[in-house]
Amino acid sequence: MSNCIFCQIIEGTIPSQKVYETDTVLAFRDIQPAAPVHILIIPKKHIPTMNDVGPEDDQTMADLFAAARQIAKEEGVAESGYRLINNVNKDSGQVVFHLHFHLLGGKPLGPLLAEK
Amino acid sequence: MSNCIFCQIIEGTIPSQKVYETDTVLAFRDIQPAAPVHILIIPKKHIPTMNDVGPEDDQTMADLFAAARQIAKEEGVAESGYRLINNVNKDSGQVVFHLHFHLLGGKPLGPLLAEK
Repeated sequence: MSNCIFCQIIEGTIPSQKVYETDTVLAFRDIQPAAPVHILIIPKKHIPTMNDVGPEDDQTMADLFAAARQIAKEEGVAESGYRLINNVNKDSGQVVFHLHFHLLGGKPLGPLLAEK
Repeated sequence: MSNCIFCQIIEGTIPSQKVYETDTVLAFRDIQPAAPVHILIIPKKHIPTMNDVGPEDDQTMADLFAAARQIAKEEGVAESGYRLINNVNKDSGQVVFHLHFHLLGGKPLGPLLAEK
């Protein structure tokens, strides 16, 4: 998808601070970090949202979590703790429509939601 | 794990409001909802945290997201939006050490974290 910012990061036409890469997954630092550790983990396949994941993507979904586990270790937050967040559509505030998980850590992360 | 509250929910010795069940996955309503839709999606296998997921759990991980997609549709939040959250260890506030994803929706969910 030539107009997708994350596809352009995968292609290398937009630079990023990569922390993890396999054939199916890329992870890089969020440019506006919300915590000391804030990494985006994405499939290389262009999938707009969780709603668009199909059975053919099962291995890729599992690969995203293998990435999360390894990144959490390498970033030193596996034991102290981290949060994985996937936003879908408007109510969640999803901005980039290429499936991504936020990995957040490095400080106490507070409640699930900012307000009740 | 007889002392795990989620294992007891799976076994039925603790009641829950189930919304989805397969051989590998159970989902039920959070008893202290943080949003109009607040569902917990868990593997039936006792896995304490994301750190403890192994390659043998790949299909189960994919199954959790098949569950999320179907539940989001059934709860009427697939299009309006929802957020999936997995907490790991202390900094995230993980309370029950049986892997679970929160599915939150039904209202604007605010920023990723409550505070910077």
